[in-house]
Amino acid sequence: MKAGIVGANGYGGVELVRLLHHHPMVTLDLLVSHSTQGHKITDQYPHLHNILELPLEKLSLNEITDRVDVLFFATPSGVTKEIAPPFVKAGLPCIDLSGDFRLKEGHSYEQWYKKSPAEPEFLDQAVYGLPEIFRERIKDKTFVANPGCYPTAALLGIIPLIKEGIAETTGQIIIDGKTGVSGAGRKLVQGSLFSEINENTKAYNLGSHQHTPEIEQVLTDLHGKDIKVSFNAHLVPMTRGILCTIYAPLKERLADADLVQLYKEAYQDEYFVRIRPEKTWPGTKEVYGTNYCDIGVKVDERTNMVIVVSVIDNLVKGAAGQAIQNMNLLNHWDERTGLDTIPVYP
Amino acid sequence: MKAGIVGANGYGGVELVRLLHHHPMVTLDLLVSHSTQGHKITDQYPHLHNILELPLEKLSLNEITDRVDVLFFATPSGVTKEIAPPFVKAGLPCIDLSGDFRLKEGHSYEQWYKKSPAEPEFLDQAVYGLPEIFRERIKDKTFVANPGCYPTAALLGIIPLIKEGIAETTGQIIIDGKTGVSGAGRKLVQGSLFSEINENTKAYNLGSHQHTPEIEQVLTDLHGKDIKVSFNAHLVPMTRGILCTIYAPLKERLADADLVQLYKEAYQDEYFVRIRPEKTWPGTKEVYGTNYCDIGVKVDERTNMVIVVSVIDNLVKGAAGQAIQNMNLLNHWDERTGLDTIPVYP
Amino acid sequence: MKAGIVGANGYGGVELVRLLHHHPMVTLDLLVSHSTQGHKITDQYPHLHNILELPLEKLSLNEITDRVDVLFFATPSGVTKEIAPPFVKAGLPCIDLSGDFRLKEGHSYEQWYKKSPAEPEFLDQAVYGLPEIFRERIKDKTFVANPGCYPTAALLGIIPLIKEGIAETTGQIIIDGKTGVSGAGRKLVQGSLFSEINENTKAYNLGSHQHTPEIEQVLTDLHGKDIKVSFNAHLVPMTRGILCTIYAPLKERLADADLVQLYKEAYQDEYFVRIRPEKTWPGTKEVYGTNYCDIGVKVDERTNMVIVVSVIDNLVKGAAGQAIQNMNLLNHWDERTGLDTIPVYP
Amino acid sequence: MKAGIVGANGYGGVELVRLLHHHPMVTLDLLVSHSTQGHKITDQYPHLHNILELPLEKLSLNEITDRVDVLFFATPSGVTKEIAPPFVKAGLPCIDLSGDFRLKEGHSYEQWYKKSPAEPEFLDQAVYGLPEIFRERIKDKTFVANPGCYPTAALLGIIPLIKEGIAETTGQIIIDGKTGVSGAGRKLVQGSLFSEINENTKAYNLGSHQHTPEIEQVLTDLHGKDIKVSFNAHLVPMTRGILCTIYAPLKERLADADLVQLYKEAYQDEYFVRIRPEKTWPGTKEVYGTNYCDIGVKVDERTNMVIVVSVIDNLVKGAAGQAIQNMNLLNHWDERTGLDTIPVYP
Repeated sequence: MKAGIVGANGYGGVELVRLLHHHPMVTLDLLVSHSTQGHKITDQYPHLHNILELPLEKLSLNEITDRVDVLFFATPSGVTKEIAPPFVKAGLPCIDLSGDFRLKEGHSYEQWYKKSPAEPEFLDQAVYGLPEIFRERIKDKTFVANPGCYPTAALLGIIPLIKEGIAETTGQIIIDGKTGVSGAGRKLVQGSLFSEINENTKAYNLGSHQHTPEIEQVLTDLHGKDIKVSFNAHLVPMTRGILCTIYAPLKERLADADLVQLYKEAYQDEYFVRIRPEKTWPGTKEVYGTNYCDIGVKVDERTNMVIVVSVIDNLVKGAAGQAIQNMNLLNHWDERTGLDTIPVYP
Repeated sequence: MKAGIVGANGYGGVELVRLLHHHPMVTLDLLVSHSTQGHKITDQYPHLHNILELPLEKLSLNEITDRVDVLFFATPSGVTKEIAPPFVKAGLPCIDLSGDFRLKEGHSYEQWYKKSPAEPEFLDQAVYGLPEIFRERIKDKTFVANPGCYPTAALLGIIPLIKEGIAETTGQIIIDGKTGVSGAGRKLVQGSLFSEINENTKAYNLGSHQHTPEIEQVLTDLHGKDIKVSFNAHLVPMTRGILCTIYAPLKERLADADLVQLYKEAYQDEYFVRIRPEKTWPGTKEVYGTNYCDIGVKVDERTNMVIVVSVIDNLVKGAAGQAIQNMNLLNHWDERTGLDTIPVYP
Repeated sequence: MKAGIVGANGYGGVELVRLLHHHPMVTLDLLVSHSTQGHKITDQYPHLHNILELPLEKLSLNEITDRVDVLFFATPSGVTKEIAPPFVKAGLPCIDLSGDFRLKEGHSYEQWYKKSPAEPEFLDQAVYGLPEIFRERIKDKTFVANPGCYPTAALLGIIPLIKEGIAETTGQIIIDGKTGVSGAGRKLVQGSLFSEINENTKAYNLGSHQHTPEIEQVLTDLHGKDIKVSFNAHLVPMTRGILCTIYAPLKERLADADLVQLYKEAYQDEYFVRIRPEKTWPGTKEVYGTNYCDIGVKVDERTNMVIVVSVIDNLVKGAAGQAIQNMNLLNHWDERTGLDTIPVYP
Repeated sequence: MKAGIVGANGYGGVELVRLLHHHPMVTLDLLVSHSTQGHKITDQYPHLHNILELPLEKLSLNEITDRVDVLFFATPSGVTKEIAPPFVKAGLPCIDLSGDFRLKEGHSYEQWYKKSPAEPEFLDQAVYGLPEIFRERIKDKTFVANPGCYPTAALLGIIPLIKEGIAETTGQIIIDGKTGVSGAGRKLVQGSLFSEINENTKAYNLGSHQHTPEIEQVLTDLHGKDIKVSFNAHLVPMTRGILCTIYAPLKERLADADLVQLYKEAYQDEYFVRIRPEKTWPGTKEVYGTNYCDIGVKVDERTNMVIVVSVIDNLVKGAAGQAIQNMNLLNHWDERTGLDTIPVYP
């Protein structure tokens, strides 16, 4: 099967390159980049030297549908909604890593992204690609809205609480997110400079991060009733990795061991979700470069709260890896295909 | 005035060296170290070469009370309680940077520190040295329990909420702390190795961090009623800096501008507390190497919560700098003496 | 084929685990660790959770020769020479990642390692495992001394100069090495603490690094006459990666383009050596996690010197990856087997 | 005395702000910035909040000569030569941190900087401000060309070798420089992004760095005969700090102890140059935030070479600190005034 990547020049795009190159069922055949068209990918990323000397091409509907069997959009939010629809319409399986097709309600997109939403027809067609939760919905579709990085870590951490009905759900779920800088992409912004980030931890977009409605939409969908969360993001001085610390009031007392057991059962069939033993919690480095989501939990008995720590590599399970997991699912391949690697540690 | 440091060989001790060297009213005259006695401080810390070639001496009651006018204990928790009392009894002004004399209730110390507590007589004598809040209590004492690093950031962030009665105080205050690695000191532990910390963010001591009762003790003292907090710590890949993100439910609706104003008024006379304008929050690098505590706030209207972001340099306002601020206070000097420097940025 | 690792608990050992797990021809079946025997590898390395739950066992000659077909020694220098010989004698294919069997002359080992050397019989049996240079010698042996990290980068950088006779060889070759901290292993030493390494670059072992005679031995072997180098090492604040900058006086004038061409030809059949285009030089991140050695060159016309920049991942091409390349060679498999991955970037 | 800074918005400018604020003889009164004129400095640098709320103003000859007594140019190379001359002509003491007035030969500037040089009249007037070497020349001047960061570290490291005539000077001096990223300034370039720099060490501008002729000019001046060096630069993942490793062939054999002694004597009256004991070499962190240049030396007897390791903080001794040292010298103040602080460690 032949795959193409639109937006191959960004960090999400080049991570797709890395993972697709190792995928036994796929040949990477087409790289599209608006900004660096005409160059070779190795001009932008010398680490690919001798391995993948593909040109960066321009976007062309007819040619692309002829050349590839699946197309990944690693383009920024606000861009995919403009360029993906013709490919979707043409029936080409498309997986979008941007935020453009995740929110079902256009007005919500408008409010949080400060941009006009995609056409409702395509919002309807797009399935939210969190395989551990929505496997059945995804597998027969051809257009996937790949989840955001924070929502992936947050949702996999929260959902067992909601499904099992053990946490209060009335506006008291707090998600304190910490991310590495690669999530901001390769854009030239002052806040991404090494000298600004190194030896620095800072909060950003408090109360207004665009991943908030995405998290709420999924939780509300699963719960049947409105769920609100307070999601707040922080930047820490590392390249890869997201850690979400989730706080929720417990409905009734629960022992640590039971909480761990509950999570183990919730994810017993999930290869990519690993639950840590009691009183241990994962670090982001323990999933570095892989599609794992590692989770540790804790009951804070004094305040009757549950604390969940969930980590992913933002570029893999939070972006390119999960996109490939979705591709595997669309093709009824084993979801682990091309993704069963060991984290790079240390 | 002559000053001595017990435990000069740790990171807290050597930060006291740095700051005291610049203090116009004090001469640093005595360095004590149990583990490296007989060496010079420059053998341990070559950055002091040619600047401070003092020997590391052993602890000797009679000699020390003769030689210095103020004594800092930068020794680990569990150690100060064994060695400080004779100096306190002898009437020498003592400032302890460990956790041994902060908790007024011995059983609480025992529960959280897993060690037997200090003698009640000395617990009674020790005043909790958070100058912005307890200035009046401190200034006539001679024995100061210098606050912990996390409690300093957390308390300065929370107290205005409690004092003004705008947050719910019934078990729903959450403090999500992020710290650099220098807080763990120069001890040889696997978790402090560069290769383990770099590109890694992890949670630790969830629900069981020994700084929890210290925060609660102060809040309860100020509020008059029991306050419980859920304090949870994270390690991020940087050397210095603590950022606490504090979440508390609001009693009633409040605008961002009013919340900022409330904080500005609460700290209008405090040189070392700086309140950020609306919709901006500080990064740890913005207080690097200084005694500042920078605070930014946010009302999350959707969940009716207040979010407070509070940053300090854990080795300065969280340890050595605040100890010197306390020394200034004991001596009725301007609290800023020796501490009015600009953060090292970038 | 079944593989075992002695010293599985160090960074070199755990990198072997990562790479062998992905190797299509090998099953990892045995982990030996002296210091942590009785634990599971996942107790030491939670990133392996659910992937490889093997126990750490003790060393037992009879059992091991029965259970595995190849044995890797990722033990420290000074240890392998004590424990490997019985396995070598028993005819089990052994690959040693330590420095114990690299130097052919016992007195040289003694001088540089400050330890007594291995038995001459085993020094004779061990072949120096730099496949790009000694492929023919290696492929029929069963005992491989895997090259050091610095020597790998330095030798692949220097050898074309020597082979082509374009550099002066009389005591004027300088190698300025820069390494990440993982090369120092997981040992608890003050100099490996995050707070000591971060924001720090320092020189160490100037003129006395034990990798010096290893480099000279190979160059002298290839050149036929004595070659001396001045090799000097530096520690930079990163986990993985080595960059060697090599300076050598040119015999006669040479253009940049010709020098690049000379290197391209020298390595035209080598998959793992990639030569950069004129006026570009590799960064260590461009080989992160992989077995590549990337090289860029430059003629400094003003001083008539050649400058070679050579980078590797010290844990892969500088240790575990090259060991697997040697295993492939011993078994007459394609050398790339299990190693043809793309660097993790960024 | 009142001071002004042109280019206050860059890292060199804001480091001048930090250091001048602590200077007892100077009031910082004027900040000029072309790019951010009209803003306050705290909009650009929130770490200055409440400390220095000065506006960023535009450049105006008449007003400035009235308002300040000394003017620092922290503007980029190519800019100072266009804007400084009128101030120099007006007799205002000016200290330029750019490279525009360091090279005495216009054609050399043109060759290495690829720009047209400054007017010869102003090149003649500018004195090269390396106080340890040219104190006597500097103290009666009013226009100082502050040395580059690499040249400061390199020259202080090399000069004793040249002055004492112990190294060969015929084209065989090699300087291998390693720098943190802050030297590249706050400009938005891809190569300064955190995700590109972190876990990366790379070479740049091999054989063509514009600091080469600056080093050669000074050495030739002192030696009386032409000296050529091969200077080559590397970027390491840290914010501050430069380490130069210098290699030079010895004329005759020399013991380590004698070499250390020679350096100690060469700098016995220099407060800011600290020589390390035999077999120890400084790390960049040991001068962090200060004006020190720390030097360690080594004779490599096997190759008859001398190795010198020299470290500075590129923003202090390599820029703003040295500029203030020059200001002190111009005013016949103690050179240490405002600069006698202890490095921030760890």
